[in-house]
Amino acid sequence: MSSDRVVDLRIDRRRLVARLDALAEVGAFAATDADHPDVAHHGVNRLALTDADREGRDLVVSWLHDLDLRVEVDAIGNVTGTWPADRTDPPVLMGSHIDTVRTGGRFDGNLGVLAGIEVLETVIAAGVATDHPLAASFFTNEEGSRFAPDMMGSLVRTGALALERALDAVDTDGLAVGDELARIGYVGPSPCPAPPPHAYVELHIEQGPVLEADGTTIGAVTGVQGISWTELTITGQSNHAGTTPIDMRHDAAYAAGRITTFVRDLAMAPHGPAVGTVGRLDLHPDLVNVVAARAVLTVDMRDGDDEVLRAAEEALAAVCRQLAEEEGVTVQRRTLARTRPVAFAPRVVDLVAEVAERLGYSVRRLPSGAGHDAQILAEVCPAGMVFVPSVGGISHNPAERTAAADMAAGADVLLHTVLALAEAGSAGHRSSPGAIPDGGPTGPSVDR
Amino acid sequence: MSSDRVVDLRIDRRRLVARLDALAEVGAFAATDADHPDVAHHGVNRLALTDADREGRDLVVSWLHDLDLRVEVDAIGNVTGTWPADRTDPPVLMGSHIDTVRTGGRFDGNLGVLAGIEVLETVIAAGVATDHPLAASFFTNEEGSRFAPDMMGSLVRTGALALERALDAVDTDGLAVGDELARIGYVGPSPCPAPPPHAYVELHIEQGPVLEADGTTIGAVTGVQGISWTELTITGQSNHAGTTPIDMRHDAAYAAGRITTFVRDLAMAPHGPAVGTVGRLDLHPDLVNVVAARAVLTVDMRDGDDEVLRAAEEALAAVCRQLAEEEGVTVQRRTLARTRPVAFAPRVVDLVAEVAERLGYSVRRLPSGAGHDAQILAEVCPAGMVFVPSVGGISHNPAERTAAADMAAGADVLLHTVLALAEAGSAGHRSSPGAIPDGGPTGPSVDR
Repeated sequence: MSSDRVVDLRIDRRRLVARLDALAEVGAFAATDADHPDVAHHGVNRLALTDADREGRDLVVSWLHDLDLRVEVDAIGNVTGTWPADRTDPPVLMGSHIDTVRTGGRFDGNLGVLAGIEVLETVIAAGVATDHPLAASFFTNEEGSRFAPDMMGSLVRTGALALERALDAVDTDGLAVGDELARIGYVGPSPCPAPPPHAYVELHIEQGPVLEADGTTIGAVTGVQGISWTELTITGQSNHAGTTPIDMRHDAAYAAGRITTFVRDLAMAPHGPAVGTVGRLDLHPDLVNVVAARAVLTVDMRDGDDEVLRAAEEALAAVCRQLAEEEGVTVQRRTLARTRPVAFAPRVVDLVAEVAERLGYSVRRLPSGAGHDAQILAEVCPAGMVFVPSVGGISHNPAERTAAADMAAGADVLLHTVLALAEAGSAGHRSSPGAIPDGGPTGPSVDR
Repeated sequence: MSSDRVVDLRIDRRRLVARLDALAEVGAFAATDADHPDVAHHGVNRLALTDADREGRDLVVSWLHDLDLRVEVDAIGNVTGTWPADRTDPPVLMGSHIDTVRTGGRFDGNLGVLAGIEVLETVIAAGVATDHPLAASFFTNEEGSRFAPDMMGSLVRTGALALERALDAVDTDGLAVGDELARIGYVGPSPCPAPPPHAYVELHIEQGPVLEADGTTIGAVTGVQGISWTELTITGQSNHAGTTPIDMRHDAAYAAGRITTFVRDLAMAPHGPAVGTVGRLDLHPDLVNVVAARAVLTVDMRDGDDEVLRAAEEALAAVCRQLAEEEGVTVQRRTLARTRPVAFAPRVVDLVAEVAERLGYSVRRLPSGAGHDAQILAEVCPAGMVFVPSVGGISHNPAERTAAADMAAGADVLLHTVLALAEAGSAGHRSSPGAIPDGGPTGPSVDR
């Protein structure tokens, strides 16, 4: 095949969408949302290591076999299809996940896995030869909705999380990852940790509103923001709202209000974190005429610069101390999760942007606010991500949607990025300094 | 009996406490509270028109009969014992209520009723003659914990609430006041509304921390603050906390935080309401990494000056409009309850203070932050209240407590205030202008 014909190579949009639709039938449910009670959405519930997950895995594995790939399952249930089947040197790996949150959509994760298969089929069908092998993976339990931590499969694959610890993780019913993996037949012989791939590229929906609002088709993802989750428990004193003078109160609700506005102000400040959110807040006793004795709230702060995030955490701690003094309350802080920012390899980020421009798509560089398997792979090889727009910025929701044209654009950018990385001499080097702490992220069993 | 001997007259503290203890056995339960999990308190659950309420009523009625009073039950179940039994001209009335909140204490309401009986027994035993008859009442459903509105019995007695409307009120199980009243045998022949008493005085625990913090034994209550309860429903947009830039958010939790701090600032301002409280706040979906789509919160504001309260409501409405604009959210306001301030008759307030000083007790004038039957009676006759300290300001709680010496002091002040009001020519005139709107307070079935 001539180099001109390679430049003109495009994925098959209909085939990609057909596989996405077929996979979305597994664990499908009909749903409406609060904002659109009249519109039924097609939701997907394929929590990790459930029967639905097995059925989804089996379907994807059948597609890998259809392409005569070498299909390998590792000890944590990650599945990889490699082409050419007889090549065992490090591949340029594409991947993502097919597990979903309990009330998820059809795009999150699935798009990246099926685009990887689509790229392989396109390359194979065109008879293109690459210097490095190509591969597509799906990683176990990226969402973390059933088992903590999230991104479990990629953490174990890269060695950031011990296999035994992952296998021992239990869900709220006390069922362990190891047992559930065996039950669905996805304990494989390939070892963990595995040798690093030559490079890693992940296509994913943005799950945010930036690209759509911007009118941009392709996001060249610069890295993943560091995440700081803190739970604050404020203990004041329950008192009658009518008979207790303001200066004799120890009002947990007021202190929670002060922290909520502080977090916003901090995120708006010139050197504050990129985003800051109080998403949970529970009062006790939660009565109209009783001063709240207790407030439990969470603070989610994210930034691409770990120094900025650390300074934000210190500022939050300081305002808690100040409030404790002023209002006569106690404020307990508990870290729910903490990850350091990850910068993707500049060579891969640049390549994604160059490929998108060459293919005629609008492109912007942006960080990812959500966590992805790519940030784990970035620890061991040059890695990057391609984002495509999410309609309304909606994700983790049956109403999640990305236009077929945008999916195809993202898959074409993935195709040519991967082909470039698979050329001899193309290897960059990983440039994310440390980033994820030993043992991987800790925290509750929910996606970030 | 000589006038010197009348001046030296005192109630019998042991008899008062014995009746209070006996009544507290009806509906009793053992409880601990969050602040003192190791200490068992003696709680009382005598919700209005339950079997426990009937049993409590029967006990108090037996005590009225023991004193050979004329015992009358009216159409809404209020009970009055009058002395001398053959006098039908307007009495100086003492009263309060014996219904409790679901997890109440033994003092709230009960003290005022039993102190009234104690005053009658003391006067009768001493052979004191008064120009006006004396009487003691307990009013139906003051708490409003089971049926709305609170202060139902006194509202119907004074004509501020139509009897039929009160009888039709239902609890959460759909049971009606009229049926429950008949079931427990407390539908009486005395008409509602009834002729106004000559004067009304109510002894009550403060239910707040002011007297205790002040080291004062007696509160001469100047009136009852007006109450404004507003429910705010803020609707924003649910978004990913990591991927949604701050300036693209419509964050209901942030708006709720702004309102919470605004209410405090308003109550601290020179011309703001006496107190302001956000006691309830619920977020949806209430997840650590999701910008809140909806917040429902309540604002409780109180002041003795209706103009101040009205200005505070306008300021709250203005900040809601401003926030709606700034944050791109909608804010719906709903009035849950609104009462106008009631000023007690100056003659009665002065008398309470004079009597307390004469008896050698420390005294301060203060408004009531909570609602009481006295504010309803104040619409039809000269009325006032005597407060005694609540330990820790705690009320509506099994841990509610008032020292026996303070109860006795309050009952002695009640005794001599009532004796003075029962002298010929002592009648003041009511001075509360309008105050409770037609139909009485509206709102949810909870005490204020």
